Formats: sequence, structure tokens, C-alpha cells
Amino acid sequence: MSADQNPNAGSETAAKPPRRDPFDLPDVSGLTVGILGGTGPQGRGLAFRLAAAGQRVVIGSRKAERAQEVAAGVAAAITTDGRGELTGEDNAACAAASDLVIVAVPWEGHRDLLLSLEEELAGKIVVDCVNPLGFDKQGAYALRPEEGSAAQQAAAVLPRSRVTAAFHHLSAVLLADPDVERIDTDVLVLGDDRAATDTVQALAGRIPGMRGVYAGRLRNAHQVEALVANLISVNRRYRAHAGLRVTDV
Amino acid sequence: MSADQNPNAGSETAAKPPRRDPFDLPDVSGLTVGILGGTGPQGRGLAFRLAAAGQRVVIGSRKAERAQEVAAGVAAAITTDGRGELTGEDNAACAAASDLVIVAVPWEGHRDLLLSLEEELAGKIVVDCVNPLGFDKQGAYALRPEEGSAAQQAAAVLPRSRVTAAFHHLSAVLLADPDVERIDTDVLVLGDDRAATDTVQALAGRIPGMRGVYAGRLRNAHQVEALVANLISVNRRYRAHAGLRVTDV
Repeated sequence: MSADQNPNAGSETAAKPPRRDPFDLPDVSGLTVGILGGTGPQGRGLAFRLAAAGQRVVIGSRKAERAQEVAAGVAAAITTDGRGELTGEDNAACAAASDLVIVAVPWEGHRDLLLSLEEELAGKIVVDCVNPLGFDKQGAYALRPEEGSAAQQAAAVLPRSRVTAAFHHLSAVLLADPDVERIDTDVLVLGDDRAATDTVQALAGRIPGMRGVYAGRLRNAHQVEALVANLISVNRRYRAHAGLRVTDV
Repeated sequence: MSADQNPNAGSETAAKPPRRDPFDLPDVSGLTVGILGGTGPQGRGLAFRLAAAGQRVVIGSRKAERAQEVAAGVAAAITTDGRGELTGEDNAACAAASDLVIVAVPWEGHRDLLLSLEEELAGKIVVDCVNPLGFDKQGAYALRPEEGSAAQQAAAVLPRSRVTAAFHHLSAVLLADPDVERIDTDVLVLGDDRAATDTVQALAGRIPGMRGVYAGRLRNAHQVEALVANLISVNRRYRAHAGLRVTDV
């Protein structure tokens, strides 16, 4: 079965509203982006790139002091002009202060943290970038959350939020390296709310080299999360910091 | 969690044998490639590309006559010099005649067909490119085989074969189009047998534009198979024939 064989494509086309240009994305430069778990390598790297691109960023952590410390360190590493404001808060204050919240916490604490922030995250775009993985002597392998994926777990726990999934495949090493000017990768964005996925795609596109590409509904998030196990194998075999590009788009 | 964070990387490095160049791949030009289900769109497309690249190809089908008919049609479409021999056989004769066998059958008949060819496929490299998918009004979604993936099912059914997984993400439309000279995509190759995955990578690399990239063990095949559901969403949104490139490799 190849990707261009879809038994339902014909029947759906007939019922579709007029097609919207998939490259026509909103201006997101005014949004405040919160990053829960923003003191970890992935969160720090995203904070660095987004603030360097001019986005207002709030790093969240269990302790506000720690978040502020990391925010100051990340801000100091940004040498480009037009840096966005970068602050640190505890996770609840981070969620409350932000228009869009990236979830970059370890899988282990994922469910409990989101459950505790249900109120603060209500009505907001939540971007899950968590990859549930296990490790043994043979390397990484995918875990299968009960809900199907980390993103679907987030959606189950946050019924009032607009949950999307994105930013799974980024190298924290490349994100954090100020000598790396462009991140050569596409960001696969998943979700069931078109305005929300458009917004997340636009946000990814703010980072030089990155492009946000819509890649399906939340029910197809598991394989995107799990693919990090494969990229770990790629990185080990080729001594690389692999990313992904979608061709013909 | 990003792909460059591997808690086991340190300890494993110490025990590793000297590293082999991952780009040093064997010469596979002398191998005969069988394609089970070679009369379907994906199989036909692969037969076309591999034979055009000079590979000897045997198309397999339930009926030898049908396979021969398709082989003749595919051969007639090849205009490049140096075309490999292209013949058709029933599936059992196809498996018996080939050094390496690509499994391109529909998921529904996957297990039974392989079970019936256990003898013919013993000792051979088997390349599973089957994507177990379901379809409903919302599009495609991943099915989860009991064994974990189609490739792991193949390995369970074929204990004497060297089972790999590859060629999941190719557009049958692009493969079959003689005006498309290069297929702009990487082929993720999975398997537990290094010599086998090296061989499959080399085979992918015979097709202009393609590159075979090692992407992990068979236990991580599910997400690679399932990712076709996402590419179907990409293709629908962008009216594309999407492929994947691995960056930094």
C-alpha cells in the first residue's frame, strides 16, 4: 500500500468545502509561547530558537527560580537582534501567561502535570512534543500509551484545550548550538483543529530552516512520536543529528 | 526527549567492536530480486525502477500468466539502456528463483502467503514493505498487528529467512511515471541482521534519487509502517506525492 492509494479519497472529495491554501498560515508573531518542562534540553533548545526568532517565551518549571535562572541563561546566549522577551515561571503561571503551550516534559510525569494544569490550559493551544520511549541494551523502543499516544493522552486529560502534537524530531544538541544558524528539518504537526495546527505550523516556520507540515489527525500521533526511536538508531549508526524533510511539499 | 539523548549510549560505546563505515555497502548488481505481489501498484513500480537500474527482477503473482503479462508491460515501459531481465512467475517460483524477495502484497493476505512460502524463502533476505492500515471517513489510520508490525509478523512466520523492512513510503504514482527520472526520497531500512540491511540499503541506492538509510531494528518497524497514514494526510492536504529525507546523514 503506498501513500497515494486511498480508497476514500474519491468519495470525500465530493463532500469537501472549497480547498484552503495549506501554505496560507496565520501571523503568530504576537503570541506568547509557554514551554512546560522548559528547563530540559528540548525545552531549552526550543526556547532559545523561538526567542531568537522574536517570539515572547515563558519557560515553565516546577520551581519558578529554576525557570528564571534557565531563562536568563538562554537569553544571554542569544546574539541576534530582535530577541523576544524570555522569562521563567512555575508551570502553572507559565500556562496561565501563555497563548500557546508546548509540553516538553519527560513522559513519566506527563499525565499528572497536565491534569494539574487543566484549568490554566483551558481554551489554549497545547503542543505536545513528548516521545514515550523505553531503553534497553539494544537501544530505544516505542512505548504505547493506553490512550494511543502522548498527544491523545493530553487530549483526554485536557478536554477544554486545543491539543496538537509537533516538534518531536528535533535534535536538542542542534537547537542549543548558537553556531547552528538553521535547523534543517520539517516539523510534522498533528491535530484535529485546523486553526490550531495552522498556528503551530506557523510557529515552527518562525525558526530559520524549519517548516511546519501538517501530517494528520491526533489519532495518527503515535507513530510520529515513536519514530524518535528510529532516529536514535540513525544517529548512532551515522553519528548524526538526524532530522526529517518531507519531499514534494 | 530528543533523539540525541540516549541513556544507554555511553555504556554501549565501550563494548562496541570497531565501527564499520555505514556508507560502505555491498555490490548488489548481481542479485535477482523477486517481488511478491509484484502486479500491484507498489510492486509494479518497484519492478520498473529496479529493472530500469539494471537489476534482474522476477515479478510474482498468484498466477504465473498474470505475472508474465505484467512483467512484459513493465519491461516495455523501460526506455533506458542496461535494463535488467524482467520475468514473471507464480509466487512460489518467484521466491525460489530470487536471492532477495520484496513482499508487496496487501496486508490482508500477508501472513498466509508468507506461511505458504516458508520453504522457498529459507535463507533469503526478505524485504517487507507492507503497511497495515485501516480507512474510514476521516482517512487512514494505523492497524497494530499482533506481532507488533507486518515485518515482525514476517519474521515470526519465516524463522529461517533474514527479514528486513523497507520501501514503505514510496509513491506508486511516482515510481510508475516514466517521466519522473529521480525519486526524491530516502528509504528507511530496518532489520536485526547488518549484512541484510546493508544489502537492502544498497538495493535502494540503485534507484536514481533514492538512498537506503538504516533506521533501526525490526522491533521499531511499526511506526515506520504506520507513518504511511501520515503521508496520506500530507498528500491530501498538499496535493503531493510526499517522500521523506533524513537530514544530517
